[in-house]
Amino acid sequence: MASGDEAWLETGRVRLADYGIVTVDRARRRGPHGKEGSFVILDAPDWAVVVPALERDGRRLLLTVRQYRHGSRSVSDEFPGGVIEPGEAPGAAAARELLEETGYQAARLVPIGSCSPNPAFMANTFHVFAAEGLELVSAQSLDEHELVDVEAVPEDELLARVGVAPWDHALMIAAAFFYERYRAGSVS
Amino acid sequence: MASGDEAWLETGRVRLADYGIVTVDRARRRGPHGKEGSFVILDAPDWAVVVPALERDGRRLLLTVRQYRHGSRSVSDEFPGGVIEPGEAPGAAAARELLEETGYQAARLVPIGSCSPNPAFMANTFHVFAAEGLELVSAQSLDEHELVDVEAVPEDELLARVGVAPWDHALMIAAAFFYERYRAGSVS
Repeated sequence: MASGDEAWLETGRVRLADYGIVTVDRARRRGPHGKEGSFVILDAPDWAVVVPALERDGRRLLLTVRQYRHGSRSVSDEFPGGVIEPGEAPGAAAARELLEETGYQAARLVPIGSCSPNPAFMANTFHVFAAEGLELVSAQSLDEHELVDVEAVPEDELLARVGVAPWDHALMIAAAFFYERYRAGSVS
Repeated sequence: MASGDEAWLETGRVRLADYGIVTVDRARRRGPHGKEGSFVILDAPDWAVVVPALERDGRRLLLTVRQYRHGSRSVSDEFPGGVIEPGEAPGAAAARELLEETGYQAARLVPIGSCSPNPAFMANTFHVFAAEGLELVSAQSLDEHELVDVEAVPEDELLARVGVAPWDHALMIAAAFFYERYRAGSVS
């Protein structure tokens, strides 16, 4: 009997649109039950985010960035991150976004998890890093339409904020999940 | 000085496409720095997911559903959930999806969190519920192209799987984050 554990076969695909941030395809696929269906697939470059930790006066602080988000039409508190450029390694993108949005450079970058933003219809991957040994080396260097406020918040205080607006970006909640596992020692 | 804490003003918007699962708009907006930009916004119905817990022989088990996902082209393990229908309350959608995908009905449904799938360019909201007092009342009732395998897994074992493929759907990781907070008593 056909089950949810089996792959579908792609029998055709057309590009419907390219919006810059995402492309839209329509794919035809045949399932393990023998039936064919038509599915809208969104692709995008992979994304990378970094949880930056710095030690100050014996306390561990996390850097958070606040910015207006055009999808939700609201101000959102997040970890630094963004789109991975063509040919760029995920860790390099995380380091670059950290530098651009906060001016900080990290001595160590640790991959702590990756996941699919929405496997139901999105094809790309989201990569999460922890950054340690931070040093302020420059000013912010933002894109034309970016306005980003940086804040350093004690780790426990920041993690307590996660999950409630303005700390309610699902990918950032996933990043906090990976970070908590990393800090608890279950991810090395 | 203009900051990330200020809203932008919408000065125009056109619908570019309607793909059924998402619509695509192009919005013009003026920022607090006085500059205008053009932004692609994806909207979709809100989504609801439910973490279903059942007690069996003194153990707490969570129900998980396995299905092939057309965005990632891979098999994905998730909590039951789906699209909220027009006029449907989030909790009603969660209960409906639970019943359709697993055949179980819940005595109690508790809202444990909500978030934005991706506020950078998506406008919709994701709602998470915990379901308790489960009773098997019917067979699965799936859409034409759904093939869903149901499994009951001890709570600690399932939560340990979260974050690693095939348990790597970002919204499900966020759901697990909310559920762990709920179980720890920090959310009532």
